[in-house]
Amino acid sequence: MPNARPELVEKAVNTIRMLAADGVQQANSGHPGMPMGAADMAFVLWTRHLRFDPAEPRWLGRDRFLLSAGHGSMLLYSLLHLAGFDCALEDLKHFRQLHSRTPGHPEYGFLPGVEITSGPLGQGFANGVGFALGHAMLAAKLGPGNPVSDAFVYAIVSDGDLMEGVSAEAASFAGHHKLGRLVYLYDDNGITIDGKTSITFSGEDVTRRFEAYGWHVQSVDGRDHDGIDRALQAAKAELGRPSLIRVHTTIGFGSPAKAGKSSVHGAPLGEAELEATKKALGWPLEPRFLVPDDVRAYWAEVRAEKAAQKQAWRAAEQAWRAANPEQAALLDAHVERWVPERILDRARAELPAPDATRKVSQAILQKIAPLVPCLVGGSADLAESNLTEIKGAGSVAPGSFAGRNLHFGIREHAMGAIANGLAYDGLFVPFVGTFLQFADYMRPPVRLAALSKLQAVYVWTHDSIFLGEDGPTHQPIEHLTALRAIPNLHVCRPADPEETAAAWAHALQRRDGPTALVLTRQKLAPVKRSVPLDPEAILRGGYLVDAPAGATFTLVATGSEVPLAQAALEALAKQGVVGRLASIPCLECFLAQPKAWRDEVVPPGQRVAVVEAARGTEWWQLAGRDGLVLGIERFGSSAPEKALAEEYGFTPAQVAARVTRWLAG
Amino acid sequence: MPNARPELVEKAVNTIRMLAADGVQQANSGHPGMPMGAADMAFVLWTRHLRFDPAEPRWLGRDRFLLSAGHGSMLLYSLLHLAGFDCALEDLKHFRQLHSRTPGHPEYGFLPGVEITSGPLGQGFANGVGFALGHAMLAAKLGPGNPVSDAFVYAIVSDGDLMEGVSAEAASFAGHHKLGRLVYLYDDNGITIDGKTSITFSGEDVTRRFEAYGWHVQSVDGRDHDGIDRALQAAKAELGRPSLIRVHTTIGFGSPAKAGKSSVHGAPLGEAELEATKKALGWPLEPRFLVPDDVRAYWAEVRAEKAAQKQAWRAAEQAWRAANPEQAALLDAHVERWVPERILDRARAELPAPDATRKVSQAILQKIAPLVPCLVGGSADLAESNLTEIKGAGSVAPGSFAGRNLHFGIREHAMGAIANGLAYDGLFVPFVGTFLQFADYMRPPVRLAALSKLQAVYVWTHDSIFLGEDGPTHQPIEHLTALRAIPNLHVCRPADPEETAAAWAHALQRRDGPTALVLTRQKLAPVKRSVPLDPEAILRGGYLVDAPAGATFTLVATGSEVPLAQAALEALAKQGVVGRLASIPCLECFLAQPKAWRDEVVPPGQRVAVVEAARGTEWWQLAGRDGLVLGIERFGSSAPEKALAEEYGFTPAQVAARVTRWLAG
Repeated sequence: MPNARPELVEKAVNTIRMLAADGVQQANSGHPGMPMGAADMAFVLWTRHLRFDPAEPRWLGRDRFLLSAGHGSMLLYSLLHLAGFDCALEDLKHFRQLHSRTPGHPEYGFLPGVEITSGPLGQGFANGVGFALGHAMLAAKLGPGNPVSDAFVYAIVSDGDLMEGVSAEAASFAGHHKLGRLVYLYDDNGITIDGKTSITFSGEDVTRRFEAYGWHVQSVDGRDHDGIDRALQAAKAELGRPSLIRVHTTIGFGSPAKAGKSSVHGAPLGEAELEATKKALGWPLEPRFLVPDDVRAYWAEVRAEKAAQKQAWRAAEQAWRAANPEQAALLDAHVERWVPERILDRARAELPAPDATRKVSQAILQKIAPLVPCLVGGSADLAESNLTEIKGAGSVAPGSFAGRNLHFGIREHAMGAIANGLAYDGLFVPFVGTFLQFADYMRPPVRLAALSKLQAVYVWTHDSIFLGEDGPTHQPIEHLTALRAIPNLHVCRPADPEETAAAWAHALQRRDGPTALVLTRQKLAPVKRSVPLDPEAILRGGYLVDAPAGATFTLVATGSEVPLAQAALEALAKQGVVGRLASIPCLECFLAQPKAWRDEVVPPGQRVAVVEAARGTEWWQLAGRDGLVLGIERFGSSAPEKALAEEYGFTPAQVAARVTRWLAG
Repeated sequence: MPNARPELVEKAVNTIRMLAADGVQQANSGHPGMPMGAADMAFVLWTRHLRFDPAEPRWLGRDRFLLSAGHGSMLLYSLLHLAGFDCALEDLKHFRQLHSRTPGHPEYGFLPGVEITSGPLGQGFANGVGFALGHAMLAAKLGPGNPVSDAFVYAIVSDGDLMEGVSAEAASFAGHHKLGRLVYLYDDNGITIDGKTSITFSGEDVTRRFEAYGWHVQSVDGRDHDGIDRALQAAKAELGRPSLIRVHTTIGFGSPAKAGKSSVHGAPLGEAELEATKKALGWPLEPRFLVPDDVRAYWAEVRAEKAAQKQAWRAAEQAWRAANPEQAALLDAHVERWVPERILDRARAELPAPDATRKVSQAILQKIAPLVPCLVGGSADLAESNLTEIKGAGSVAPGSFAGRNLHFGIREHAMGAIANGLAYDGLFVPFVGTFLQFADYMRPPVRLAALSKLQAVYVWTHDSIFLGEDGPTHQPIEHLTALRAIPNLHVCRPADPEETAAAWAHALQRRDGPTALVLTRQKLAPVKRSVPLDPEAILRGGYLVDAPAGATFTLVATGSEVPLAQAALEALAKQGVVGRLASIPCLECFLAQPKAWRDEVVPPGQRVAVVEAARGTEWWQLAGRDGLVLGIERFGSSAPEKALAEEYGFTPAQVAARVTRWLAG
């Protein structure tokens, strides 16, 4: 850090405070309290520790900074502006306005330097674990002296982050795995929206809790810059465990009437109090969004120092690359998230025989994992059921990161958020598995992956009542509908090995959003295609399996119901009732096709029935009011698979009979 | 506990082990390991501590026993059988079969003595906190000597329960609030599905973690009955804090080849190993499902002791009732979850003026709360935004339970599960609030409330993009679709004070499932009804607001889009385009109506358009293929409400124009 008089430092910190307060006031909406309280710690971190380059925001060697407490977005935007990132004063002035680059909560992809989308509490905390995990894994692959091994992952987290269960799961995971390059500053301000944290949080000893997770914990006064600096140094020296620094702050610091109160959390100061604050801090009332010249000059010095750091890093990187060409190529494959061309052909090579699609998926995974070095993943304690293991690739274990298989424990929520961390950082394509039922436990990070356009893959098995005896607590009914409702999430429910290969290929090729593979527990009968298979057609989301002459209606099915529908159609054909069979493994992909394709698969002039052992609401869009949706409108039951098929009307004979009645109606 | 020779005790415990192993073997599916390992602790708890009456399973004075580790269901079923509950050997023999009363995981409502539906890990842990909270709250209302104050809530919890974030949230809540009558036995067997817990959990010091939450923690050998007994006594003596007893067990105890291994967790022992186990335990190979006569006789003695306990309790209760007639009446109101007749009329009395529906809800809550003593609730740190406070009713605080307002902290998942605990126990109707966006964080307990037919109420505010500047991380899009997909959940999205009153009345009258109130942040224009209002019609889920002569189509809307649709229809009427306006605040209720009513509201001969500022997928069922659904198929944006209305096509002029184009198409 460049030397500076204490007065200048105070002025520089107040610049952050006042940019935040001005921004919220101008937007007439937002959260001034957190930035005003946390400005000191952020300033110390950014000027004395954080490695960054505003000219190359995604510089591989940078430290990562995550604002888990995303409501304090003006803190981040102010820092990005002052540090010279592509974030102009105009951006700050358009805080929270339509089409601005400074939305109410930070959104990944809007502004360079924003590493994650944050706001839903706890998510950023767990994302950071994913960042640090990825660095450790990549470093272990690349060997000594590699250019990714010495970055730190910093975050500012809030009371709310620590109360959320997802952060408890992630903290336990990080502590267990000894992720030493994780350094979190806890903005311990004692205030939440409803008042003091003592209302509902003070019974908990946060220090002791994090020590129990295996973390290194310190406490420091939030106004003491040297103390914060020393704590950061000590945290960085603890390379065998993650660190939490409790920074005791005053929310809304500087506001005479509102500092330390919950009223400053989520609303503008108001014109009068903004003025009073500026007076109290010795700040000019005008102009708004003031950055004093000497503060600008100071940040220029900071940037020069950071540039020198980068230069040193670059020299070391070049030397390492020269000495380790193979490892350098591997690094590049990670940076590009390289996937070989024609991955569909590779996935389709030597397909296994029809079986449970989870088993087929397992076989395909073994083929593609060696081809895609950046593919890593695991399960929330269901690897034996989800069949997500990359065989022979080894497991990640405490302090040992060379494997490709992750053991998330029974922590689905953190698993989803850690996968997001890996995906945000962009050095891995993560896949994570659990039962489809427990997609509910990880729904918040799934949504954020879709919103943030992250390449993440979900392997959700045991995808219907046909998982059998475990009963309704484990049998998904509404989950397909609920997941398909999330914009930009592609839900693939393959029916056989061809479709499963296509689903994996789609997940690997798709760079701008998450893909779910929804797989059966139970063995499936083969799909017999009378329409010659075009593997690319599967990637269109829906295609015709059978198109017999004289067909008078279309039966649409997905996954395990494709062979069922085929058996029902065979029974109907014997009665002279002839229908088409369309398989639509990915409804989102299908609906995005040109009308001509959609009309070919589901001819609009004829009636449409859909069979899917799930809620089915979304299929009415295809079926229409004279259509039929054979779904399930109640919860499942604990019973063997065959008994359930009978009970819920999903035998071939029952489907045929229901279609017959419908056609007659 | 009746005296018994150690040999008889061992035999009695082995009876539980072998009933479980036989049951799983017969079903050829299930989880034998946990019951075999935890049989000792369960036996000590049930015989020496738990207060119960098999003849009156819902006896108010009973202790509650929850099996959070629901996969060990055969442990619970075996205990219920041996203790004389209405659970026959035949029930055990039909474990996991269709229409049996012994499903794979325990389900509330199937078998007397099953207090909760468990299986999704962590839920039972948090449910228990709800039970204990309810007892403390009711006891505080009833005063000294009341008959509900001395019950304990016991649970057996597993590694998986403790890894899930929901239990972290619930443990912190319970510790903070000093819920002293909560005693959890942790089946610490070191094994999960994927292997030893050391793969991903051993980095965590569970004892220290729970001490950090403010719990009393002990450790004990899982085979040492007297040790377990002493630990339970000590836990019960700690009335100022919850207790966790780490019981070190061997999963699958007794199985020579599989004890202590993950292979015994979730699959039958197999015939050979079952035989080997019986030999190792000195157990007859036949008959299966053996309960030796002396074991039966022993349980008869246990029952006699429990009956004497109950008699003493009953005598004290009668004396208390005689001395405290008013309090006794209040107790009965809780036991019945009493709601006055014609609650809709009471809710409608002196309705506030149209405003944000969350504000209207707040006003109605103030009116109905005094009428419904069992109604309690709160928010996950958003009481100021959800407007869920019962004014003047006081807050629940550590060790102080007389208030009606709960402060859940930023712990939505535990909030939902604690509400379920209150609802399972049946002494309260809980309402809990957060932003609709964060319904995702509490989705697992919402589903379980629907599955278990619990009367719980959700107050989800900030229900669309029109919450404005907080942006897409806070703006629900897919949530209505995802929630409506859950069977038995009623989602009410009222448009004005009349509909908000009806939604509250519905939530209070409905005994067999949860009800969601989905409310706006923003102020709404009044709904002008040209069809005379029948308040009961609102309860039918959908009704006509305007039915002008010459209408050629129906426009359906919900919530904030009802006044919007009305404005659009007014604009269209000026152009001579005349449409009906149907408000459907509760789609599930509407679809359950007789066809005649549905056809009256949405005449089938005419075209249908639906406007809802959400995903809208489920509305195609009403709209059909020639219909129109004006929804939102992408994520929201951070911007002021008015800018968003314009951007997303939800101004009256835009809606009118889109309807015009559609009618022409």
